[in-house]
Amino acid sequence: MNRLNVCLSPALIPLFKVEDYIVVIIDIFRATSSICYGIENGAEAIIPVAEVEECAAYGELGAGYLLAAERDGKVVDGFDFGNSPFSYTKEKVAGKTVVLTTTNGTHALHLSRNAKKIVIGSFLNLTSLCNWLKSQGEDILLACAGWKNNFNLEDTLFAGAVVEQLKPLNFKLDDAAIAANDLFQTGKADINGYLKKTSHSERLKKLGIEKDIEFCLQVDLTTAIPVLKGDKLVRLNE
Amino acid sequence: MNRLNVCLSPALIPLFKVEDYIVVIIDIFRATSSICYGIENGAEAIIPVAEVEECAAYGELGAGYLLAAERDGKVVDGFDFGNSPFSYTKEKVAGKTVVLTTTNGTHALHLSRNAKKIVIGSFLNLTSLCNWLKSQGEDILLACAGWKNNFNLEDTLFAGAVVEQLKPLNFKLDDAAIAANDLFQTGKADINGYLKKTSHSERLKKLGIEKDIEFCLQVDLTTAIPVLKGDKLVRLNE
Repeated sequence: MNRLNVCLSPALIPLFKVEDYIVVIIDIFRATSSICYGIENGAEAIIPVAEVEECAAYGELGAGYLLAAERDGKVVDGFDFGNSPFSYTKEKVAGKTVVLTTTNGTHALHLSRNAKKIVIGSFLNLTSLCNWLKSQGEDILLACAGWKNNFNLEDTLFAGAVVEQLKPLNFKLDDAAIAANDLFQTGKADINGYLKKTSHSERLKKLGIEKDIEFCLQVDLTTAIPVLKGDKLVRLNE
Repeated sequence: MNRLNVCLSPALIPLFKVEDYIVVIIDIFRATSSICYGIENGAEAIIPVAEVEECAAYGELGAGYLLAAERDGKVVDGFDFGNSPFSYTKEKVAGKTVVLTTTNGTHALHLSRNAKKIVIGSFLNLTSLCNWLKSQGEDILLACAGWKNNFNLEDTLFAGAVVEQLKPLNFKLDDAAIAANDLFQTGKADINGYLKKTSHSERLKKLGIEKDIEFCLQVDLTTAIPVLKGDKLVRLNE
């Protein structure tokens, strides 16, 4: 029986032998949502980096890179755009390589780098991702990027949505997978409403990105599954 | 507004500035349940240690210590008893100092050692603990001992039960406190039944300690609040 485990924070990833798993990286607000949307819209690759300085360094390699960096919800001077999924449209990203600055997501990716495979999940590609995961016959680790190494509700709720689709296949769930799924049951009728009570939602509201939040909570808008090849996220070709 | 935060695993305790908090250590199966029961029953002190060898070392200090150590659910040869709460009766522990071997609980205690105050929680002393916490006017961190540094459901469910009693006081909850409380809502009608689906429960069942589990899930059997003084847990005198 394959395992379906949920890692509630990057700080807990070292507890898992990631070599045994396909790892799904989850950072709903907004990195993995924007990545799914960008790859769907034809971005050739998306390179996630942790720091604005690393992102800027790619700019010096030539004009081939679109640079995305935000601080406090605003595009950093000299960069092409920020982390809003609305920046990842066909018009902007098709055929381009985007360098995306994302602290939590990059941290989770880095800690998972020895996994069998690393793919990217968000509500946008939920069912497509789950169908692919079902076909793999492997142990699966849903890795929540969280917030500054701690637990957050939106990533956990999404993990619970994945568990919901996979559990008919008789995976062995760990306690975190059970909990994530039960939280999804509690919140699923109105995920946006449910998440409004979180502190993170307050923080995002202050940044004026409520439209981004609504966008990131749309289910099955896309079908592309971003997969890590080297240091680049590209579209998975089956 | 005071904070009411939940730490879902000892691995996440370093994310909190414990100096700012009263920390409640939670290790429902079975360390903190046995500690609450033992202190209620007149144990002069309970000393939690991580290793059987540390526990044995207390035996060499003289006959004043009762030594509790288990491996794989069985009392280790040469020790007085194990971790079952049924060992912590008045007849056995009144007036005695017990040295208790508990890996997860000791780990959480050690990481919290700079807290304003460290107290011990379990379903056994739930309401008494909550009433005391309500009277303190302090930030509160509910620290789940978990299982080998990872999340577990039973400790989280108890944290959610504490949140349930404290939230009318208008604490500021973090995402983990919201999640723990929602999981408690899901499980509260039949906590034992709810926990039966966890892997940990399977493990405990194999050890033949189902009676311990039932015992540990009794609500408000005791009123004593164990508090850490130096390296000893003693009864809190208000």
